Amino acid sequence: MPSKVTLAEKFAGFSEQWAPRIVARYEGHEVRIAKLEGEFDWHSHTHDELFLCVDGELEIEFRDRTETLAPGELLLIEAGEEHKPVARKGEVQVLLLDPENAPNTGDPETATVAVEA
Amino acid sequence: MPSKVTLAEKFAGFSEQWAPRIVARYEGHEVRIAKLEGEFDWHSHTHDELFLCVDGELEIEFRDRTETLAPGELLLIEAGEEHKPVARKGEVQVLLLDPENAPNTGDPETATVAVEA
Repeated sequence: MPSKVTLAEKFAGFSEQWAPRIVARYEGHEVRIAKLEGEFDWHSHTHDELFLCVDGELEIEFRDRTETLAPGELLLIEAGEEHKPVARKGEVQVLLLDPENAPNTGDPETATVAVEA
Repeated sequence: MPSKVTLAEKFAGFSEQWAPRIVARYEGHEVRIAKLEGEFDWHSHTHDELFLCVDGELEIEFRDRTETLAPGELLLIEAGEEHKPVARKGEVQVLLLDPENAPNTGDPETATVAVEA
């Protein structure tokens, strides 16, 4: 039976950026956290992906628009939607929801595998 | 293509307690928010359930232990685990993850159906 997870403690436990950590498992999906800074590559997934901004300001660029997330804001990225996360104003802390083992880049060849927090 | 969701705005849009609102849909699951105060009934689900405390202090009682969640703390409740959410110190705001149409009480007969935020 899982114990509670204090996100601030989990974020304090690593410094690597763009390297997701798993903090909980739900119905075949992984609740992940990550630290982001700078620009990520354009990519898409075969599944939906949820971003919840915990700290900092995160831009998520789409081909036709940009969504800017502040803490307490979330965004659902639908399967197939090309997107590019960008953290222009310093490091951002996010909580993510992805299927188990789903590659963060959309491609197992280039992905940083999510590991336990 | 969904736009971002500002949780504070969605929480400001309703006052009913123990009445989940849907703020996003992910892979056949609903991201819900709810306002809780006082004691809920003991219940379990046939699926995992995720709680993320957004504001206030939430106790989740289990038959053998209690977990107390502050803002920024989350808890995965496994399928079948009997639990009882209790907000003793005033209203609590939570974000939840449940399968689509899953009853909040574990029983469609007694559930408050989640509606769009």
